[in-house]
Amino acid sequence: MLGKTNIGQKPKTSISSSIHPIKVESGKVLLLDQRQLPVAVEYFDATELNAMCFAIKEMVVRGAPAIGVAAALGLAFESLRLSNLVTSSSEFLTQLFCAKEKLQSTRPTAVNLGWATQKIYDQVVTLLSRMDIPSVAEQILQQACALIDEDIETNLAIGRFGASLIKNGTCVLTHCNAGALATCGWGTALGVIRSAIQEGKQLTIYVDETRPRQQGSRLTAWELQQDGIPVTVIVDSAAASLMAAGKINLVVVGADRIASNGDTANKIGTYSLAVLANAHQIPFYVAAPISTVDTKLSNGDEIPIEYRADTEVTRCGEEQICPSGVSVLNPAFDVTPGRLITGIITEKGILKAPYTESIRDRNRMVT
Amino acid sequence: MLGKTNIGQKPKTSISSSIHPIKVESGKVLLLDQRQLPVAVEYFDATELNAMCFAIKEMVVRGAPAIGVAAALGLAFESLRLSNLVTSSSEFLTQLFCAKEKLQSTRPTAVNLGWATQKIYDQVVTLLSRMDIPSVAEQILQQACALIDEDIETNLAIGRFGASLIKNGTCVLTHCNAGALATCGWGTALGVIRSAIQEGKQLTIYVDETRPRQQGSRLTAWELQQDGIPVTVIVDSAAASLMAAGKINLVVVGADRIASNGDTANKIGTYSLAVLANAHQIPFYVAAPISTVDTKLSNGDEIPIEYRADTEVTRCGEEQICPSGVSVLNPAFDVTPGRLITGIITEKGILKAPYTESIRDRNRMVT
Repeated sequence: MLGKTNIGQKPKTSISSSIHPIKVESGKVLLLDQRQLPVAVEYFDATELNAMCFAIKEMVVRGAPAIGVAAALGLAFESLRLSNLVTSSSEFLTQLFCAKEKLQSTRPTAVNLGWATQKIYDQVVTLLSRMDIPSVAEQILQQACALIDEDIETNLAIGRFGASLIKNGTCVLTHCNAGALATCGWGTALGVIRSAIQEGKQLTIYVDETRPRQQGSRLTAWELQQDGIPVTVIVDSAAASLMAAGKINLVVVGADRIASNGDTANKIGTYSLAVLANAHQIPFYVAAPISTVDTKLSNGDEIPIEYRADTEVTRCGEEQICPSGVSVLNPAFDVTPGRLITGIITEKGILKAPYTESIRDRNRMVT
Repeated sequence: MLGKTNIGQKPKTSISSSIHPIKVESGKVLLLDQRQLPVAVEYFDATELNAMCFAIKEMVVRGAPAIGVAAALGLAFESLRLSNLVTSSSEFLTQLFCAKEKLQSTRPTAVNLGWATQKIYDQVVTLLSRMDIPSVAEQILQQACALIDEDIETNLAIGRFGASLIKNGTCVLTHCNAGALATCGWGTALGVIRSAIQEGKQLTIYVDETRPRQQGSRLTAWELQQDGIPVTVIVDSAAASLMAAGKINLVVVGADRIASNGDTANKIGTYSLAVLANAHQIPFYVAAPISTVDTKLSNGDEIPIEYRADTEVTRCGEEQICPSGVSVLNPAFDVTPGRLITGIITEKGILKAPYTESIRDRNRMVT
């Protein structure tokens, strides 16, 4: 812990990417503790493997891209630790494999977690054939650290493509937090909004509070406020009446995993918004890096959905908001079928239906 | 206040109407304080006019039918108080008129509030032509007290009609609280569920938590638990994915005001559910007494929608869940167009589209 700071309420006047949810400083991985927002800014030391697993599971860090980078850093720092203890390559690889499995088991839905840790592990295997363990560990750590800047670059590209879809004067609704806090900075869905504003467009922004974890009201409202971007918070169930009143022109959300046919897993309530947007003839966009596509899955039925603790629903801080002992169903994600998605905004361009084809073709371009 | 009791968790084994949100005892109007549920059962003394206005405004008592009866009792007790102070009929009427206006101004959307207080006031005017003030006050109080039993009878009739729509094994979703707590006992939407269960049908019941006031998780879950009826709480935005998964066969909700064409104002999120039910071809029913129909309004656009305090969204008890100073839009109700409503279950029968005709014809039957 790096101490507690009360957050000043005065928003900054210009757009910035001043929010850094993941920092590597003085040989430590520091995560902006998103459980404490918006009340306090506090960094969590996730350098140790167990601390990183805890941080991902308990949502100190959350958002598919951020989880991917955090887990990669966790694995890289574990390889550094092991490099000081282990001299046998096979022992090193075995222990690193266990660490990767442990990280991957923290949360099931976001594909980036598995993708990023697998990428790091495969790289270790390759490098070990031509380097000693300490050199491998050092190089892996550099590569993992580079993911932070790569992620921001990806988000800026997503933002540029997405901004082209947004006219001046648009009223945009977003859900959960697909912002700087869900990435390494800038954001995917909020990156699109930031980029449009950076281009000088005037937008009206609404965000669903996003029960039960309140990522909309706790995180999205906070990070937009930090950047001086006005935003209005609504309860999730009010989105439909705003749509009916003509107050929403476009919906943009992030993604945790996208199947090959465009079916998209994202925060619970995303599917609800997609159906509502469709019924009100409002464009519904997903913004996510290409790495969110899981080409192993043919459709959304195959995406594993995480169910989280009842207490997320039955309590709010110290407040008991359900009678004790009542049954709760608390899926953290839902799946929106590709047919309800107007386009998927990636760093390579905007994918359109039929997604099976556009995703396949776009994936060929990824290096 | 009548003291605080911790609520036992053991549910009763049989259906009952043991929940009495409005009681008249020892010359007092006592309201089950719904702000304290599900943590404590506490009664609030609303005998004085100002206390009753506070109780309605701050949602000590809520739910359109309950508000109507509570306000009628408030006006009746005020007439009793005035009868001890005022000897001139015109002075009595003037002061009672002011009391009626004050009660009617507490909440704008529910029609029952205006309907019940106007009925009481008109009755006072009629009786004053042939009785002295004390006799009028006494008779009015009796009539107001009789509304409690009348409301329960109405709910039982709604329940009987509604139960005919529900097959054994149905999975029912409801929103907010249209139960015993929203009426004088039994409930409208929950009355339909109670009656179906009383007929021996096995139901699976889901309730939306209903942000921001949590009437679903705080109140509906509590009152069903009291009656030994299993219920599962979900966040509002999870309803769509349950529908897509085939886990919901029927939706039933209450109503705060129904226009002549069937457009229905009810708790925020109701319209959202109606659109979602329609998209998933799930029947969507409204259950409400005929008195909920406001024949003065041709359609839902004319229904006044209450906007409530930002703090309902920004705080949860002591917990701050939004950054300070952020903009909030907090409509308490939305309007569902009649075209999305499969039927309106009343104590006179089930109204079907076209509602302009069915409501007009059914209203002719009301005595």
